[in-house]
Amino acid sequence: MKPMRLLLFDVFGTVVDWRSSLIGTGEATGAEGDWPAIVDDWRRAYQPALAKAREDSTWRDLDAVQRDTLDDCLERHATSLTGEQREALVRGWRRLRPWPDSRDGLERLRSRYLTATLSNGHVALLADLLKFGDLRFDAVLSAQLAASYKPDPAVYLTALDLLECDPGDAGMVAAHAGDLRAAAALGLRPLFIRRPLEWGPDGPAEQPPDLDGLLVAGTLTALADTLGC
Amino acid sequence: MKPMRLLLFDVFGTVVDWRSSLIGTGEATGAEGDWPAIVDDWRRAYQPALAKAREDSTWRDLDAVQRDTLDDCLERHATSLTGEQREALVRGWRRLRPWPDSRDGLERLRSRYLTATLSNGHVALLADLLKFGDLRFDAVLSAQLAASYKPDPAVYLTALDLLECDPGDAGMVAAHAGDLRAAAALGLRPLFIRRPLEWGPDGPAEQPPDLDGLLVAGTLTALADTLGC
Repeated sequence: MKPMRLLLFDVFGTVVDWRSSLIGTGEATGAEGDWPAIVDDWRRAYQPALAKAREDSTWRDLDAVQRDTLDDCLERHATSLTGEQREALVRGWRRLRPWPDSRDGLERLRSRYLTATLSNGHVALLADLLKFGDLRFDAVLSAQLAASYKPDPAVYLTALDLLECDPGDAGMVAAHAGDLRAAAALGLRPLFIRRPLEWGPDGPAEQPPDLDGLLVAGTLTALADTLGC
Repeated sequence: MKPMRLLLFDVFGTVVDWRSSLIGTGEATGAEGDWPAIVDDWRRAYQPALAKAREDSTWRDLDAVQRDTLDDCLERHATSLTGEQREALVRGWRRLRPWPDSRDGLERLRSRYLTATLSNGHVALLADLLKFGDLRFDAVLSAQLAASYKPDPAVYLTALDLLECDPGDAGMVAAHAGDLRAAAALGLRPLFIRRPLEWGPDGPAEQPPDLDGLLVAGTLTALADTLGC
């Protein structure tokens, strides 16, 4: 196995816990609603909305896409919010709590590898989110810099280009099989992190994809252990 | 004075000491040469080369531009290097030592402001350089993301756009009057750092520009003091 030089990280779900954080944000608005159900439904609308956004001629950032999906979702749940409450939820994506192992794991991985985010969140959102969680990466990269969304190959290739790294010298760290499949198809090494609580204690646990060279770890600190950091 | 939310930082000369670092790199190649004179001459070729690069139809990164200027400069100094020695000097820009106050100053400024580099160095170079010097910013932005070079207004405007910040809510931190003049013309607040040793103990000390709202500090820690960080 060729040694890696760069690790790219998915963020939502892999590094931070969107679900419990957003349920808290919803409850804190004071609006009546089944917040766990609303948040799960909103998050389920995420992938289809991004798939649609990839086709648009004008790139729109995640806030814009998620305002639309939130409105649809609130309507389905017969929940109405003021403009301010709605904006608090959209901005809530900048205040998602890191998983307990994230800060330490990232710090250890950074000691040996160049590390960068590679998220569908835009740069401004990511900068705020990392600051909120005190999470340190060597670079903050986003699908925005390719004016697209994962799993478009252009997103991964733009990040590799910006960091002058061949795909074979890089790994993609994610809790999602689709992200890893797209990265592996380009030659990046797939590193799967188990996040069984991503969809809550009763939610489904995502299974690792069947990919050559796959490495599976239960946490980012366990990944650091495995990689000798 | 409106409070700022974002501080953008020039890097070469403002945060790191290119001159003594590159003289050391030159000497370490083992090649005979008047390294202080070569390094100063190379650095003097930087602005004119970037001005020319801004006009080119294809954007080239700083490594490419600096390979050309280094070759010219070595010829003028009748110094010949192997390909490997030449590359060590170009790569030397990724191993420039921070000024003694930089790490602490940046950390304090980051406690109150969103901070980002805004350098003519490309993202890969900056990521390596910040890692080498253990320097932390909230985002690593570069003229590369505008496919141009400072002082092109597009460079500053692209950074503000990526961080969703109005010019009036941002400051530009630099040891160079030209950088601050370009930023101030767009509405950013100019924050001048005195780096009298940038061109060595006998070199000229750059004077702060005459700009409204200018703030002058002797170091990044002094800037943090002044801004109450």
